[in-house]
Amino acid sequence: MAKPQKTAISPTRAENYPDWYQAVIRGADMAENSPVRGCMVIKPWGYAIWERLQGALDRRFKATGHENAYFPLLIPLRFIEKEAAHVEGFAKEMAVVTHHRLTAKDGRLVPDAPLEEPLIIRPTSETIIGEAFSNWVRSYRDLPLLVNQWANVMRWELRPRLFLRTSEFLWQEGHTAHADEKDAREETMRMLEVYREVAEDELAFPVICGEKPEFERFPGAVNTYCIEAMMQDGKALQAGTSHYLGQNFARAANIKYQTEAGDWELCHTTSWGVSTRLIGALIMTHADDNGLKLPPRLAPTQVVILPILREAEDRARVMPFAEELCKAVSAQIFSGEPIRAKVDARDYPAPDKRWEWVRKGVPVILEVGPRDLENRTAAFTRRDRLEEKKAILPDSEIALRIGGFLSDIQGSLLHAARAFRDRRLRADIADLAAFTAAFSGDEDNSFASSLGFVRAPWCGEDATQETLKALKVTIRCLPFDQPKSLGPCVLTGKPAVAEAIFAKAY
Amino acid sequence: MAKPQKTAISPTRAENYPDWYQAVIRGADMAENSPVRGCMVIKPWGYAIWERLQGALDRRFKATGHENAYFPLLIPLRFIEKEAAHVEGFAKEMAVVTHHRLTAKDGRLVPDAPLEEPLIIRPTSETIIGEAFSNWVRSYRDLPLLVNQWANVMRWELRPRLFLRTSEFLWQEGHTAHADEKDAREETMRMLEVYREVAEDELAFPVICGEKPEFERFPGAVNTYCIEAMMQDGKALQAGTSHYLGQNFARAANIKYQTEAGDWELCHTTSWGVSTRLIGALIMTHADDNGLKLPPRLAPTQVVILPILREAEDRARVMPFAEELCKAVSAQIFSGEPIRAKVDARDYPAPDKRWEWVRKGVPVILEVGPRDLENRTAAFTRRDRLEEKKAILPDSEIALRIGGFLSDIQGSLLHAARAFRDRRLRADIADLAAFTAAFSGDEDNSFASSLGFVRAPWCGEDATQETLKALKVTIRCLPFDQPKSLGPCVLTGKPAVAEAIFAKAY
Repeated sequence: MAKPQKTAISPTRAENYPDWYQAVIRGADMAENSPVRGCMVIKPWGYAIWERLQGALDRRFKATGHENAYFPLLIPLRFIEKEAAHVEGFAKEMAVVTHHRLTAKDGRLVPDAPLEEPLIIRPTSETIIGEAFSNWVRSYRDLPLLVNQWANVMRWELRPRLFLRTSEFLWQEGHTAHADEKDAREETMRMLEVYREVAEDELAFPVICGEKPEFERFPGAVNTYCIEAMMQDGKALQAGTSHYLGQNFARAANIKYQTEAGDWELCHTTSWGVSTRLIGALIMTHADDNGLKLPPRLAPTQVVILPILREAEDRARVMPFAEELCKAVSAQIFSGEPIRAKVDARDYPAPDKRWEWVRKGVPVILEVGPRDLENRTAAFTRRDRLEEKKAILPDSEIALRIGGFLSDIQGSLLHAARAFRDRRLRADIADLAAFTAAFSGDEDNSFASSLGFVRAPWCGEDATQETLKALKVTIRCLPFDQPKSLGPCVLTGKPAVAEAIFAKAY
Repeated sequence: MAKPQKTAISPTRAENYPDWYQAVIRGADMAENSPVRGCMVIKPWGYAIWERLQGALDRRFKATGHENAYFPLLIPLRFIEKEAAHVEGFAKEMAVVTHHRLTAKDGRLVPDAPLEEPLIIRPTSETIIGEAFSNWVRSYRDLPLLVNQWANVMRWELRPRLFLRTSEFLWQEGHTAHADEKDAREETMRMLEVYREVAEDELAFPVICGEKPEFERFPGAVNTYCIEAMMQDGKALQAGTSHYLGQNFARAANIKYQTEAGDWELCHTTSWGVSTRLIGALIMTHADDNGLKLPPRLAPTQVVILPILREAEDRARVMPFAEELCKAVSAQIFSGEPIRAKVDARDYPAPDKRWEWVRKGVPVILEVGPRDLENRTAAFTRRDRLEEKKAILPDSEIALRIGGFLSDIQGSLLHAARAFRDRRLRADIADLAAFTAAFSGDEDNSFASSLGFVRAPWCGEDATQETLKALKVTIRCLPFDQPKSLGPCVLTGKPAVAEAIFAKAY
């Protein structure tokens, strides 16, 4: 039997998937738990990835005519009450501000000056933006109103996990108002397509686009659309949602406009959002037992150059060559921007630094030592093919080929994720017995199992929720691409209304 | 007597300066009060200016080696208590979270599930970042640690004013740790210089750089440096601060590193910050009785093109010319980026749209009507010289000259602000009687008065605080450029230690 290979991340995915996930984050130095339960500190490497992702999204939001704005962190209790009154399934775990002063008493500080009305830290800004829109919209000339907000939000989480489920997280929420249904529906689909494109072209993971069944809809929405991704344990992660809200929210918030003819009409509204959760999805899609693998487009550093200094006197000779190489690489273009390269000159042993960058998922590592000086070469490692032998390349080739390598890595990551997803997407499950068997693996440690998505016909009946709940399975979406004819419902044997994607989920 | 000119903003600066300020913000559609007292909604035009300003700062932070990170919104009470224990002048107006649930009771929602320890919405992240640094720093190899955070913070304000003083505001806070005093002091001055450069080169207002006297220091700092700007009512506004904290904060938070020799030493730390307050300063520096004037570098739209449509059939002829002009202008460069131009095709009367853009402070307005089509001309208005007659320029000239115009506007705004500041900076006040007279104008409506800065020698004695307090005057800073010899203290007649800038302040 082959000796198990030593890996940079322990435990491995097969040993303990949830613990592996935490270890990847720790190993890449992306985030950590804070002294406030459920809230995380996003460390520089994790935050730089978020900034890149924000940039990729924000460029597309602006290109499609949206403007950013900022709404208050705190929401008056009466706004939440109004929402709670007409929305079933209202989440009640929220941070409540009740006082606005701290006063010293017996050597301690105690809350003082109670507020007349408690304030809630926004779990979403839906209600307060609705209130603003009702003041901002007056005439058909003001429509469409296309607003986005980048913000922190808070939902008290009892079982937090870094990036995936934290009490505080960062997100964007788009809110738009339109004169008619057609315009609002187009917006809903346009933003879903923005999310699909960012997931596949930037984050390099494939997603299934579709609609949520009625019982999985955002409360109050007419239609909820989503992009669903498969993690390496076969579970689904909802990576983004886009809601067509009809006139429901406009009615609740009184968002009306005067038509060209002079009548007053309710707007049709939409909302859509993604969050730092996407970083959790990025990790669980691409990372392996040696740590993170970053798609080059989102990598804060794309190429790291490590000087190998065996003797103290090597520094004076090797460093200038490393800097020269860095300059040559930085002068090249990838994805329309100069390549982000840096020399890691820190006074740590080279192997330690190498493994640090492997764990951080930097796409390309170049190593240059005293012997490379004479030959003017560098050892070249692709993070996505770490197991392969390092290539020794002449310096004249490196700068010229690096953009191509990065492009190939970006494509390879997407390809590998798609192949994985397709391998574990089963379309051959025909009845409840097979369905039950397909979802009976060990849920908490399913990397090595065959757990995945099941794509099968579904009858659309509410009662199927009970069957699914017992199996801890959910309908992720009804994909947009539907076959011309459908077999019977996999759960009930009744005539089906659509094919659905079934999965266990984060 | 000349008939008073009609202005776009009412009241004017001379009529009621504080109300004029609010009216400029309303007229430019930058921000509004929210349903939560003291918290503002930053509307798209205001937020787009903030995004430009963020970009200008963030580029410089990164160019000087800083990385962004994100720390939790909530801070445990015990952290604040620890700080309060060793810091005098501790501010106690803070939002306190005491519960993490809302529960329905008699048809209302009430706070439920009390927290074991109350949590405070961050008034600054000093303590929680200190705690993180104490875990992150281990070795001299990890230093300097250069971190910045973009975040919302909250300090309960009883007398809020949009941008200038709001309970919630947006800011950045830089926190750095260094191996020695020299490195930390260099950092402190480097970041002050970043602030000066952004104020003068981007925001186009001149600032005085200097050090705060001891009694105006950030609590716990060894030195506090600042940039001070003069508003149009002659009051000072502290536009940014940079603190050298010595080892005080490192001692409190236990931020230690192992030296190359193996000993453990306390770090030297710094912190520095600016906020959305800068937008208040921008308004009060450049706006006039017709609204905002934006420095072109920060203007979300630099050139707006207004089609003048007198008859319905004009649209089909004029719009293509307007679009063509927009394309030609957008193909030109200003300050290293394509010029940001747009056609305002909204179905509102042209004069209304023109005044809207004047109030919003867009640097250049181009108007094209049916007659311009034949001559291929456009009417050209510079917002900073609104009173001048519109220039009629041939379309062949406009695109080529526009970058130069924008550059000239950027320079002119700074020049005008500097001339205003210098005019109201008095260096001729020699004794307390003259000093008292200089500051005896109507504080709340001082646009038309001669209120301004006084630059005069100061004895450095703590007791002078009382004299100043009675006059509602503060020492803004001891400017870096000091004369070789000093006269006697303007307040006491005693020997002076430095020249100081005295002013009433926001």
